Amino acid sequence: MRNSNRQWILKKRPEGDIKPGDLELVETPIPVPGPGQILARTLYLSLDPTNRIWMSDMDQYMPPVQLGDVMRGGTIGVVEQSNNPDFKKGDLVSGIAGWQEFAVSDGGMKLPPGVPPTAAMSVLGMTGMTAYFGLLDIGKPKAGETVVVSAAAGAVGSIVGQIAKLKGCRVVGLAGSDEKCRHVVKDFGFDACINYKKENIAAALKRECPNGIDVDFENAGGEILEAIMGQLNLHARIALCGMISTYNDTTPKPGPNLAPVLMKRARIEGFIIIDYFHRMGEFLAEMGPWVAQGKIKHDVHVVKGLENALSALDLLFTGGNTGKLLVQVSDA
Amino acid sequence: MRNSNRQWILKKRPEGDIKPGDLELVETPIPVPGPGQILARTLYLSLDPTNRIWMSDMDQYMPPVQLGDVMRGGTIGVVEQSNNPDFKKGDLVSGIAGWQEFAVSDGGMKLPPGVPPTAAMSVLGMTGMTAYFGLLDIGKPKAGETVVVSAAAGAVGSIVGQIAKLKGCRVVGLAGSDEKCRHVVKDFGFDACINYKKENIAAALKRECPNGIDVDFENAGGEILEAIMGQLNLHARIALCGMISTYNDTTPKPGPNLAPVLMKRARIEGFIIIDYFHRMGEFLAEMGPWVAQGKIKHDVHVVKGLENALSALDLLFTGGNTGKLLVQVSDA
Repeated sequence: MRNSNRQWILKKRPEGDIKPGDLELVETPIPVPGPGQILARTLYLSLDPTNRIWMSDMDQYMPPVQLGDVMRGGTIGVVEQSNNPDFKKGDLVSGIAGWQEFAVSDGGMKLPPGVPPTAAMSVLGMTGMTAYFGLLDIGKPKAGETVVVSAAAGAVGSIVGQIAKLKGCRVVGLAGSDEKCRHVVKDFGFDACINYKKENIAAALKRECPNGIDVDFENAGGEILEAIMGQLNLHARIALCGMISTYNDTTPKPGPNLAPVLMKRARIEGFIIIDYFHRMGEFLAEMGPWVAQGKIKHDVHVVKGLENALSALDLLFTGGNTGKLLVQVSDA
Repeated sequence: MRNSNRQWILKKRPEGDIKPGDLELVETPIPVPGPGQILARTLYLSLDPTNRIWMSDMDQYMPPVQLGDVMRGGTIGVVEQSNNPDFKKGDLVSGIAGWQEFAVSDGGMKLPPGVPPTAAMSVLGMTGMTAYFGLLDIGKPKAGETVVVSAAAGAVGSIVGQIAKLKGCRVVGLAGSDEKCRHVVKDFGFDACINYKKENIAAALKRECPNGIDVDFENAGGEILEAIMGQLNLHARIALCGMISTYNDTTPKPGPNLAPVLMKRARIEGFIIIDYFHRMGEFLAEMGPWVAQGKIKHDVHVVKGLENALSALDLLFTGGNTGKLLVQVSDA
């Protein structure tokens, strides 16, 4: 166990792309748990597109990270000291301990037995829940319908497509390279995948969605969303999960023309997974068996070392990762 | 009865604002009803923002009017000749007979007894249904919530606001003149009305919606919608009824930035009243008594003479009308 705690501190709200000085890695003493508290050593830190939102002061769904504070992030840690009778040394806990090696807290959620930490941080955690509730609760796909998924090789997108296939849909992904597209079709079982960097998106959607688009699980925004909106079917649903293509914009850009929403009586609905935490049981009851039976696969992309967290985050915006992006902060 | 039939023919798809030569008034023989058909003389022609959409060849919810065809429009007529046992001379029928003085058809919907034609074309017709189902079915306002209505002095908007008041909401309208705003507050009972041509829209919304916006009944689009989206509450609903500010655009403009939809887990949903025709009974059961008891008022703006239909339509885009815009084509 290290004898100091490294932390990433938000020093400056990024303008556009995140720059090296926007966050700073500092070394502080390991905190001491108070009465009823635990000290956890972080094993894995989750990197997510929404981290970029938390760094900004835009109107958002949680308070922005304050300047001078440790950067917020989802984590899984191992209990090192416990003054809380519900936790003992060696327990694995998930929480939002942030971008640091150690954290004290009142506890956290214990991992279900037998679930590896990397699965608990992806397919059986918030990533999987985002895919599951966003698709089923907001998108409401029916068997035979066509579902389009942007960022299809990403942590959420790859799971969305597999759930949609299990529900009997035609599933068309969009990803940023031929290699990702092959992976999405071959390993995740999508019916087709469009390399949006190479093809004319509208023409490719027309080819791969001959019956139009019923559900769009939207992770990208920007020109991808615009092209999708041009091919919506009557009563189509757009589950707006994220718009990663816009998060580094220095000023908010306009969105897509909304005429198709009117003409097709379509619905665009945003959702944030924190609203679904109380339904985790329902999620695990269906997703657990799917994962156990190999019906839902998932990728994990692990970067080692907390010092690499900031450069690793950039992979999400350059398309450099495939699947769930994690930082391994320390060894189990 | 005239011995010829005047018709407005679509000659050219308007580019931007409608120009005089885009439609042409022609004189043709009065048509003769075939077996099972009726001949109706038009009393009133409904002018609606959607007429501009029908003139274009944009992707829309009904086929565009074809060049060379009579312009499409909702009508109420009186039966002059009938070869259909269900209709007799003198019956009043509503339908989509178009911009002409006479039309043959298989029938139409008979007006309920005691309902004046102008009411059947506004508060108790499609206009009222649009307000009723758009607000209640899509907007789903709850008592105590804040409802914003653009084009508040218009045929639909004025009714939306009154229904929202009956449902216990705070109702804030937007209209294009101080006179309209006074009318909306004084006669239709809105809590407040913003003159969007005079005030900073965002600042005025902040003042009049101190608890944020829960429901937006959207008729305008453009900068009004954008300002509203900046002040949405959690789980807000935007019932997208129309975007009249955009209908004369020569090329489709971008829409509002969708970040608030994501952050507020909001919903934008388009609707077209033709999807609700089968629920007319439900509508009349609630709206009929409201109108009879004076709880819902409505304005009718009548322009006389079919020859004035095209110039009258322009009133919708310049804000020159207050309430339901009708052309009186012939006398009862």
